[in-house]
Formats: sequence, C-alpha cells, structure tokens
Amino acid sequence: MSRLPRGRQFFANPGPTNIPDSILHAVAHVTVDFNDPAFLKVYDACIEGLKRVLKTRQHLLMYTASGHGAWEASLVNLMSPGDLVLILETGNFSESWARMAEGLGVRVQTVPADWRRGIDIAAVRAALDADTAREIKAVCVVHNETATGMSLPVGEVRAAMDAASHPALLLVDTISSLGSIDFRMDEWGVDCAVGGSQKGLMLPTGMSFTGVSDKALEAHKSAKLAKHYFNWTVMLGRRHKGFVGTVPTTLFYGLQESLRRIEEEGLEQVFARHTRLAEAVRRCVRHWSGNNGPQLFCLTPSRVSDSVTAVLMPEGHDAEAIRRTCMGMFNVSLGGGLSRLNGQVFRIGHLGDLNEPMVLGTLASVEMALQLNGVPHASGGVAAAMAFLAEAAKSA
Amino acid sequence: MSRLPRGRQFFANPGPTNIPDSILHAVAHVTVDFNDPAFLKVYDACIEGLKRVLKTRQHLLMYTASGHGAWEASLVNLMSPGDLVLILETGNFSESWARMAEGLGVRVQTVPADWRRGIDIAAVRAALDADTAREIKAVCVVHNETATGMSLPVGEVRAAMDAASHPALLLVDTISSLGSIDFRMDEWGVDCAVGGSQKGLMLPTGMSFTGVSDKALEAHKSAKLAKHYFNWTVMLGRRHKGFVGTVPTTLFYGLQESLRRIEEEGLEQVFARHTRLAEAVRRCVRHWSGNNGPQLFCLTPSRVSDSVTAVLMPEGHDAEAIRRTCMGMFNVSLGGGLSRLNGQVFRIGHLGDLNEPMVLGTLASVEMALQLNGVPHASGGVAAAMAFLAEAAKSA
Amino acid sequence: MSRLPRGRQFFANPGPTNIPDSILHAVAHVTVDFNDPAFLKVYDACIEGLKRVLKTRQHLLMYTASGHGAWEASLVNLMSPGDLVLILETGNFSESWARMAEGLGVRVQTVPADWRRGIDIAAVRAALDADTAREIKAVCVVHNETATGMSLPVGEVRAAMDAASHPALLLVDTISSLGSIDFRMDEWGVDCAVGGSQKGLMLPTGMSFTGVSDKALEAHKSAKLAKHYFNWTVMLGRRHKGFVGTVPTTLFYGLQESLRRIEEEGLEQVFARHTRLAEAVRRCVRHWSGNNGPQLFCLTPSRVSDSVTAVLMPEGHDAEAIRRTCMGMFNVSLGGGLSRLNGQVFRIGHLGDLNEPMVLGTLASVEMALQLNGVPHASGGVAAAMAFLAEAAKSA
Amino acid sequence: MSRLPRGRQFFANPGPTNIPDSILHAVAHVTVDFNDPAFLKVYDACIEGLKRVLKTRQHLLMYTASGHGAWEASLVNLMSPGDLVLILETGNFSESWARMAEGLGVRVQTVPADWRRGIDIAAVRAALDADTAREIKAVCVVHNETATGMSLPVGEVRAAMDAASHPALLLVDTISSLGSIDFRMDEWGVDCAVGGSQKGLMLPTGMSFTGVSDKALEAHKSAKLAKHYFNWTVMLGRRHKGFVGTVPTTLFYGLQESLRRIEEEGLEQVFARHTRLAEAVRRCVRHWSGNNGPQLFCLTPSRVSDSVTAVLMPEGHDAEAIRRTCMGMFNVSLGGGLSRLNGQVFRIGHLGDLNEPMVLGTLASVEMALQLNGVPHASGGVAAAMAFLAEAAKSA
Repeated sequence: MSRLPRGRQFFANPGPTNIPDSILHAVAHVTVDFNDPAFLKVYDACIEGLKRVLKTRQHLLMYTASGHGAWEASLVNLMSPGDLVLILETGNFSESWARMAEGLGVRVQTVPADWRRGIDIAAVRAALDADTAREIKAVCVVHNETATGMSLPVGEVRAAMDAASHPALLLVDTISSLGSIDFRMDEWGVDCAVGGSQKGLMLPTGMSFTGVSDKALEAHKSAKLAKHYFNWTVMLGRRHKGFVGTVPTTLFYGLQESLRRIEEEGLEQVFARHTRLAEAVRRCVRHWSGNNGPQLFCLTPSRVSDSVTAVLMPEGHDAEAIRRTCMGMFNVSLGGGLSRLNGQVFRIGHLGDLNEPMVLGTLASVEMALQLNGVPHASGGVAAAMAFLAEAAKSA
Repeated sequence: MSRLPRGRQFFANPGPTNIPDSILHAVAHVTVDFNDPAFLKVYDACIEGLKRVLKTRQHLLMYTASGHGAWEASLVNLMSPGDLVLILETGNFSESWARMAEGLGVRVQTVPADWRRGIDIAAVRAALDADTAREIKAVCVVHNETATGMSLPVGEVRAAMDAASHPALLLVDTISSLGSIDFRMDEWGVDCAVGGSQKGLMLPTGMSFTGVSDKALEAHKSAKLAKHYFNWTVMLGRRHKGFVGTVPTTLFYGLQESLRRIEEEGLEQVFARHTRLAEAVRRCVRHWSGNNGPQLFCLTPSRVSDSVTAVLMPEGHDAEAIRRTCMGMFNVSLGGGLSRLNGQVFRIGHLGDLNEPMVLGTLASVEMALQLNGVPHASGGVAAAMAFLAEAAKSA
Repeated sequence: MSRLPRGRQFFANPGPTNIPDSILHAVAHVTVDFNDPAFLKVYDACIEGLKRVLKTRQHLLMYTASGHGAWEASLVNLMSPGDLVLILETGNFSESWARMAEGLGVRVQTVPADWRRGIDIAAVRAALDADTAREIKAVCVVHNETATGMSLPVGEVRAAMDAASHPALLLVDTISSLGSIDFRMDEWGVDCAVGGSQKGLMLPTGMSFTGVSDKALEAHKSAKLAKHYFNWTVMLGRRHKGFVGTVPTTLFYGLQESLRRIEEEGLEQVFARHTRLAEAVRRCVRHWSGNNGPQLFCLTPSRVSDSVTAVLMPEGHDAEAIRRTCMGMFNVSLGGGLSRLNGQVFRIGHLGDLNEPMVLGTLASVEMALQLNGVPHASGGVAAAMAFLAEAAKSA
Repeated sequence: MSRLPRGRQFFANPGPTNIPDSILHAVAHVTVDFNDPAFLKVYDACIEGLKRVLKTRQHLLMYTASGHGAWEASLVNLMSPGDLVLILETGNFSESWARMAEGLGVRVQTVPADWRRGIDIAAVRAALDADTAREIKAVCVVHNETATGMSLPVGEVRAAMDAASHPALLLVDTISSLGSIDFRMDEWGVDCAVGGSQKGLMLPTGMSFTGVSDKALEAHKSAKLAKHYFNWTVMLGRRHKGFVGTVPTTLFYGLQESLRRIEEEGLEQVFARHTRLAEAVRRCVRHWSGNNGPQLFCLTPSRVSDSVTAVLMPEGHDAEAIRRTCMGMFNVSLGGGLSRLNGQVFRIGHLGDLNEPMVLGTLASVEMALQLNGVPHASGGVAAAMAFLAEAAKSA
C-alpha cells in the first residue's frame, strides 16, 4: 500500500527536524575561508548566541561531528582510564552513552529506572551517598530521552548532588531538548552540556558541541583518556577556540539564521510553543487510548517530553505497520521504536520549526493509519487536539 | 489575535500554488544565454512537454507575463476592432475577461448564469442559434472559475457549437485547471487555450502561454487589433517560436522539473489526486454546513471544482475574519472572496503539490477558526474528511 | 572544439546578468499571497527603493513582463492611433522600438545616426524645430544601446527639447543602463523611463516597469490606444498601484535583496565600479586593435557604454567563431552581434554583480580565443587591463 | 586598502573548494529519516560510487567529521597503545598526523625530508629495512601535502615496502588529492585511505571516510586503542555499515550529485583538467620568478601538486600582504602559509569545479597584488599561463 510521495513530507521524526527554508538557504552558502575575518565575525557571534541558548556564560567547544561525537568529547576530555561514571537510566540513549563509556575504558555504574516512569531522584541520591570513596567522577544525565519521550528534572539531580555534597561532575545530554525545552546550564550547575545541530537548532546533522564549566575545564587538565580530534586543549590553542581541523563554515551561516529566528521569537516563547503543540499531541493520544488503543509510553505526567511523544501500541499490533502506512500513503515520517521498543512504539517528533497545521496534519494521518491497520482506538483524537489548540489560541 | 508565524506556511490560496523544493531549486538557476544551444534543448523539450499537458499536437506560444497577459494575447491575435465575442458568465474571471475585451475594443455579448449553479448549456446553444449573422467571432469560456469554485464542461460547449454549426473560435481559460483538472485541447476543439505558470504547473508567477489551433493561426492572419508584445507573427519569426524580447530562462528550468514531476506521477494520476483531496475538502464543508454553518458556494454537484473550493459563510458572519484567524494564529493562507463575494466567501485552494496532511492541517485550522470566531457549524468536518481519505487509501 | 562545461560559467552577455547567490536564494521563495500584509510591506518598500534608483519622486508602475512589455506600456498608455513619435536612432533597440510603435498604430519619425558615432544632438534639435505643428507627441531615446555599446546623453536631449520649447513627452529606455550607469529621471525631465529586472538590478527576467511623470500621467488620460494588460488606469485602481493580474511575488523578494545590495554599496559607487571595469575592457580592446585587430565598435569616446562593450572584428573574421570558442573551450558566454551586426561584432557585458577577476578571466578567454581562431591582434590586452585596474586599486 | 566585496568571490584556497550550484542545491535538502528506504538507496549508491573514485573494491567507512576525524579513525581502529608508526615527513600535515598519533598514545618514527624537495624513497626503504624487529605497524603517507604543494608517489612507497618485505599497513591521507589527482587504493596496496568531503568531491566540510582493505579490517580486530565514535566494529553492526549516531543525510544528496558530475566528466578527464589548470598556474609562477620574484615552493618538478601550488615570496616580502590585497581589492581568497611557512608562502588552490577563466582571473589578481605591494617579479605571468592554456585548447 504505497503511493508516489507528493506534497511536502511531514517530518515528524523526533530529530533531525524540519529545517526552515531560510536556514536551508543559509547553509547553501558558497565556500569561504574559515580564517577570513568576515567569517570569524559570524563565528564569534554564533558562539555567543549559542551560549545564550545554553544559558551559560562559561565555555563552548564545538565539533564537526554528530551528537555522539560530542558525547565522546565529554568523556575523553574529562575522564581517565578506569574512572567511574554514574549513568541515570532513561532508555536507549542512556544505554548508548554507557556503552560508549565502556568502549572508551571508563567504568559505568547505572541507577536503574523503569523506562515508562522515569528515574527516582531518591535512588540517585542513594547512589551518591553510597559512594563514600567519592569514586564517581561524573553523573551522566540524558535531559530528554528521545526513545521514550520523557524528560528528566536536571535541577533535581543537581539538588541531590548538592545535598550529598558529592564533587562529581554533572554531564547532561541536551541533544533533543536544547532549543525546545528549557535548559539552564549555569543555574543547574551543569559541567558539560552535550548538544547537536540537528534538533531544536533546526540545522542539518554535522555539528555538535559541549558547553563546559570552569570546573570541567579544570578537571580536563588531569584527564588522561587518549584523544586528539576532540581534545579541548588542542582546540583552545586555536583562534576558533574550537574544532580540530577544518571548520564547517556552511553550518555557521545556518546557525546564524537559526539563532536569529530563535531570538526573534524569544527563547521562552519557543519553549511555550513546544509545550502547546506537545500537549495537543498528548491530548490526541490520550483520546485514542480510550478504547484499548495506543497510549502514551510515558506514565509520569510531570515528565512528558515537549519535543517527542512515544506512543505504545496495544498488544499484538505492530508500530512499524503504522509507520509504513503513514509514509507510504500520506508522506508522513514518524520515528520508530528504538532497540527493545522496536515494533511496540512509534514516536511523533514535535520539535523545531513547527505549527498547528503541521501537528494536526500529522495526527490526522496517524489516526487514519490506525483505522487502516485495524488498530483499536477511540476515534476523535484529532478533534481533541483541535479543541485544546483552539482554546490555547484564545489566550494568545 | 496574532502570533509570529512559525513552521511552514500552509498555502491554501487557490493559486499561486505550493512550489515543491525541487522546482524552487530549479528556478534558482544562474543566468544563461537564451540562445545557448544547451538552453534551447531544455526549451524545446519544455514546449513539447507542455503540449502533452494541454493534450494538443498543435501550436504553443509563450509569454513573459501573468495569465492576464495570455488572455490579452488570445484577444489581440484573433480579433479585430468591433468584433463580437460571446462570453459565458462564470464569475469574477469571466467578468474580467469581458472587461479586458471591451478595453481592447472588442464587443462583448454575455450568456448570463447564476454564479452558484453555473451556466445552462442550452442558453449557450440558444445564443449561438440566435446569431444568424454569424457575428460572434469567438466563444470565451473559463474552464475553472477560481472565484466560485466551479468548473464548466468545455466539451459540452463544443458540442453546442457543433450542433449550432457555428464557426466561432472557442477560447478557453485553463489557468486554474491545467495540470489539476482534465483538459483536452484537441479533443474538445479548443482554438486557444490560455494557461499560466503559477497554478497546476507549480511554478512562480511570470510565464503564461496559449495553445493555438491551426484554425486560430489562420484566423490570426486577418485579425487587426494593434499588438506587438503579444504578436504571434513576431514570435513565429523567432528561433524560439515564442516570446517577444528576453526569454525568462529560469522559469524553463523550473518547467522542466515541473513536467518531470507531473509525468513521473502520470497526468491522470495527478488529476485523480486532485479529485481525491478536493472531495475531502467538500466532505468537510458539507459536514460543517449541518448546523446552519458555512456551505459550498457551488450548488451544482457535477461542476464542483477539483482545484478550489469556495465556502459561503452564514449570513452575518465575515469570511475575512476566518482568513485573519487562520493566518494570524495558524500560519494558514486562505483565499478571500473576489469582488462582490468579498466577505461572504473564503476559498480553499487544493491544487498543485499537495497531499493528505497538508489538506487536513488546513481544514483543521479552518475548523478551529470557525469556533474561535463564533461561527455556527457542525463540528467534525475534519473527521468527515479523514473518513473519506482513509477509505480512499484502502483502494490505493 | 568543445569540452564539457566545468567550473562556473562566466556570463559576459550584456544582460541578463550575473545574479548574486543572495538574490537567487531570495527569489527561491515559497509562494505567498500577494495581498498578505507581510508581503505588501516588502512590496511598498521595493517601490520606494526602485524610485531611488530611478532618481524620481514621481510614479512607478510595474509589469509581469520583460523589457519589451514595458516599452509597449510606455506607448499604449501615452499614444493614440496615428500619433507621431520621434525616435533617435541608436541601433538595434531603437529600430525594435520603432517597429513596435508601428505595430501598435503609431507613426514613427526617425532621427538617423551613424551607429558607430551616435546621434548628433543638433539633428535632434533640428527635427524638433521643424515640427512647427507640434505633431510629435513623444521623443523616444535608448539611454544605452546594448547592441552597439554606446550611451546617449539624455540630459542633452532634454536641453534640446527645452531649447526648442517642444512639448513632446520624453520617453527613455533605461533597460541596460539602470543600476549600472547614472540615470536621473526627474533632473532630466524624463516622462517615461522604461526599465527591466534582468540587467543592473541583477534579477531574473520577468518583471519590468516604467517610471512615469505627472505630465505623462496627465497625457495618459487622453491616450486612446487599446490596452488592458498594461493599462495604467486599471493598475492605479488596485491596491498595488501596479500590475494587472497576479503579482510575481518571488521577484519582489529578489528586488528587496537587490536594492539592499545596491544601497549597501551606494548607487554612485556602483556606477564607479561599472566605469572602472568597463574602462579595463576598453583598454584591453584598444590594445588588441593595434595589429589590425578587433576594435571598439563605438567611435565616440565620450559615449562608450559602461555596461557593455561591442567589439568589431577585422574584415573577414567571424565574431561567432570567437563566441563559440569562448563558450566551448572556456565556459565563457559572450553576446553576439545583433541583426545587421551579426558575425561582425561580439559583445562583452560588464554589468551587475561584477569584479576584477571576473572581467580579467573573461578578457583572457577572449584573447586566447582570438589566438585560437587566427584573428590578428596585438597580444597583451589583458596586461593592459591589469595595468589600469592595478592603478585604479591604488586610489581605492 | 579594501573595498566592499562585489561579484563572485574567487575561492583559490586549497580546500575547501568551490562548490558547484547543483551541489549546493542538492545539500539544501529537507530533512529525511536516514533509515527511510528511499534514502538508503541514495546512500548505498554513494558508497559504491565513492569506492570507484577511490579505485577500490574493498571497504568504505564514513564519519560525520572533518578529515582530521578520518585520520583519527585510521589510527584508533588499527593501533594499540605504544604501537609504532612510520610517518614520512611532507610538511604541515605529516606533522599534524604525527602529533595526533602521539596524542592517542602511538609512538612515531619520522623519515625526515626537505619540505621543498620531498622525501627520498630510498630513505623510506632504509627505515623499513632497519626495522628488523618489525615494530613498525603502519607507514603513514600524505599523498598530497596541501601546505607545500607537493605530491608523493604512493606507488613507490608501496614498492619500497614490498621490496623490504615489510608487513606494515600502508595508511594514506588522500584528503587533498582524491578526485583531483589519480589515486589507486587497490593497485597501490593501500590499507587505509583517508579522505574528506570538502576538496575534490566539492562538498561542504562535514563528512570524511576511510577506504579500508581486508588486511586492515583483520588488523582492526586486535587493535586496542580506546574508541567508540570512530569504531569500525560498532559501525559494521549497523545497517549503514558506517557512522556512529545520526547520518548526515544532506551531504549524501550532495555526494550523489558530486559523483554524477565526476562520472559525467570521467574521472581521468577530471585529473587531466586538474593537471592542465595546475600547469598554467606553474607557468605563471615560473614566469614571475624571473626577476627575483616569487617562486614555486616545490623544487622537484616531478612532484608538483595538481591541486595546490605553494608560492614562496622573495626574502623580505610578506605573503600575507598579497593575500590581504587579493581579498580586500579583488575578492580573491588565497591560502596562507601554514605554521612555519606563514608569511613566506601563499597558496593557490586549483581543485574541484574549476575552469580557465577562474584560474586566469585569480592569477591576474595575484599579479596585480604583487605590483601593488612592490614585490619584485617578472610581469607577464598571466600571459604565460594563457599561452599554455591556448596551446592546450588546440588539442582538445
């Protein structure tokens, strides 16, 4: 069941995200010398702007790499072989980060969590308290778990560390939250914030970065993991204070436009728009669930993600069939369930450059796909989303 | 009540239309010499391809002009001062064509029609029969009246002319039908088919054209209206067999891509897609009408347009308010009511590069706008459209 | 002798011109409603900006048409059937304008001129004085004759008209001068200034316009040539005060960027850059001419054009062979000789977004082509151009 | 001494390179799911095409990273802590690679060389013979040293290794040669070929890759350097057989177009064009050198690079001044001297999408800059280049 795709594809994968035309045009920039003063002016302004998005006044180091590269940078620059990190389980991405750490020769202790309910902050506190030898060098937190559609209250993790008087560094993956969900690097005492270009910043994949605290920079000096491409010391010796090797200039023209758009709208308004559209998606899914239908994967209402919603299929129904129908019949791209959730979950991304009709067109396509695949559900989810969005518009 | 526009604008104006990215990229072409052999190859292929879309093997003459320019070309090349044309009333565009004819010194006889029901073919036949002196030099038909959302059966007009044995030329405005609704120049004996770039061909405004029959070319020889920019004789003397002056090369790169897309999908499949999406819009509007709500402007089911739907507001409610809400709150651009229909009607364009979620996102926005503006309607129009589209998907 | 074209094409045709990337990106704009307030803001600013380029505070009316369309607009809006216009012979384009006038039913009187020396202003004065019956309704001047590479001092024509106390309107074709060579509509008392998008404004072909004086607008009221598509009265009744039919929105986004670029550089600096680069071309051609080589077509030093240089081949050598070699071997597009100059002349355009290496790369290619085709010439033309440009750089 | 940049910038930096418009448009692609079957088709075709450019039938692994990332991949996947690599000195990039190896915990032995004359293959052979313990695990060669404008005969290195019966792996940096200078991975027995997107492939910076031999893949299994982001084992476990994390989809659309262009022209013809244009640059520089002027940095004629020419300034003259003049006055971007060559050398890149007028416009600008800065030189370098290119055109 498939048609030749026509019309604009609705890209509701939870990242990479929809790129606005003005950013696409900006990245289609002719090649320039990355040491050209005219480019350096753009570069420096981007660094400052990106710090405002991270809500930090400390340091920012950038990489020609995807988000996984920035993860690696956070570890190789701060850890020594055999060091211990405490990873808070969130889902697929906390597992990946743990695997990476192990691959790099770092020991991993995990605070386990139910993927549908999220971590218990008390368990984090307990793990920190138990570490009387202060072996834990870093606590690693995924701010927004893209695989489960759940956020984690980073401020509460910081509070637990403070309460435990634990000196570990706080490393936060903000890849699928930055620019979509409020993140406050300095206020939350984050030592290393890992971000990428391809989500809330609405850029193509290819550039990632770490916000770095003074404390982390100090810790870096004694970190002994082998490194070069991601080595902060090498980077800080360069004019750009970032990158080893060629700078990806075109993405900076894109970032300049991305920051202009974000600040034109206002960062807090960007977050409010994400919350509004995310809530519409949730109202829709909750409605569908009425008749033993698909339901929100996240069971903790206070932690639902404003950038992605994971939807759990009823027993015996295949999430991939929904995705295939949406793509093949309606040119709508949904995210699939990752690793162990494959087939059980599909994901609706709602981050970046998004508005009401984009979300409603997506939800309508999913609702039709449920029907076409004989998946039980309470019809009327789209109407529930519309009711919420119309109400929200009243107060605009 | 307005927000900073974010996300992609839903352009549901009935033309110009959504331009696919591949066409936007194609028209962003560097300047080339319009006599360069490499360009001429593109040019010639476009002429042939456009003839296939017009379903003609006769002649095609093109203009750097909007659709009104091609209208003017059809008149100045075929008429002499004081000649009489018979214009079939359809709405705003038949009136405009009539005004243009008068401005150019041509006499106009109109076959009147109820704008909501469309012309009576018998009245056309009667007007032709009454013209015993064969004064009528041309019958002018708007194939798809963009202002009212109604099509006119051109084949039946031709049949009436044949039955009356009337020698007049048949001129057809196919601007908002070509590439969206079936049009058959040769089969229907159309002598001059007027088209533009900015509708079903999914190009920017700036180029228009006329398909021209052998009979029309013969009639042209004795037509005496003053002309130069649109003069076919001047054009036919040029290598390009079209255009007076500079050729708009970038639009040909776009047209090449437009034709590739149309023929990749198949012209008949393009029409079927338009019919499907148009029917979804109509199901939605018919549902809304239930509760003294907005209704289809077109009252003749067999003539509803597959490229645009005009929606008549209930008494006392302003169509412009709906448009303002859609644009200001949801970044959805609707068409307004033209001339005497202003304020009473809004129009939903559904032509060009379009798919299910684009249409459903638009309809959902309109339904929210009805609610926000306190316009009575039976809610659930979007669900009605979804039900139809899901059913249609079953047989795909 | 031909290679697959590689590298950027050097477009040295005298219009259309090189389009900067920022303008190409701007015209690759998604479709918007031309009545959308956000677009109208862009539109209105463009009208004001374009008036500054025309150096007028009077009226501006725009057309979806190439430059020939604006020519036609200047005639149909100001003339009545049988009216007489005085056309100053300059070359191909004065002849075309005359042919157009005749095609539209206007009588033409020509002040003849040697194409290589340019018109004698005294002869213009004499023609005006001889018109004791004041039959001449308009004097038509091509400011910059693209076919011969010669400018005409419009201010002197105005002075001659004033001295003769002749009430005719002054119509000026500024298509290949505007934005490249100083033009002063109001100061020179021009009543209708005809311009197009595709030359000094660095836009694609597709939009043209006329600056219109109060006096011309008054004359328009009694002008009786049939018209509609180009009818100022129809246009002035619309919100846009221009265009009949759909407005070509994408070109306005381009024009906005074009005006930004022109005003960023400064209009007078734009002219100075054109003069500098044009002079380099002339130094090169004069050098080539030393050995019975190609020479400047224009024999009047004070009238050489700063936007295009026509080069006359030595007897017995074909200009088209030079063009074919430049295109086939070096991916350089030159202009050909128009009408009677075909084969005798090739033309080097040097207008729009241009710099030293673009001009020198072009001249070097032409010099190689001369050698490859066995055309006698003094080699070293490029060096002569370089000497001039290096000297000019000293004072920058 | 500076003007507002106008006209197209001549980008004669030796990489990144000029990106043709068709590739810029291709990379301005909307976001797609990197697991979407339609994208995977593009992906797989790109992998196959890139292997043809590498002239290998073995393996290809790709990274979201600049060229330095692929360097790092070659080391971390093949080496264990304390392993020894033999690096052939070529200039800045062999030094950087050595520094990287040391940073990653690999021991480095260097075969020293005069940067202006290039390495003595006999010295390589001697070093291999001296390694009786077979401690050297890899020989690292920069095929084309971008800093000095010198190539190194990789086939001769392979012959020396074979003659010495040395089992070391052969690692080759082909970043600034691939797609510009003939490289034969399989024929030359290269075990790891390091390449990047931003040079001969004419793409933006952001993607790099390694061609990997069966032998290298075998060696990888026992390599113990810590790694994850660049870990081949992780990559080979994925559908894409490459990348850890998000795939940079937009660059694949660009690569698809790049490969189409390269294969349309023919890889051998691409090399021939590079040789022709490079030789023109060298003729020019040799001419300038006549009068104690700037000279070719490379003193070994058989090893001059066809992708970049380094030009050594006469004593007491600053290369940076030439670069500033070229950029400030003529909008021409040259490369600077790297590390110890800074100020003594400027570099002219001549790789990627390039043609005669681009090269000649660049050389003319440099020659003017020499004059403007009072640098002694024999004028007429451009003429020498033209003479060569005209001669070359005769045989095309």
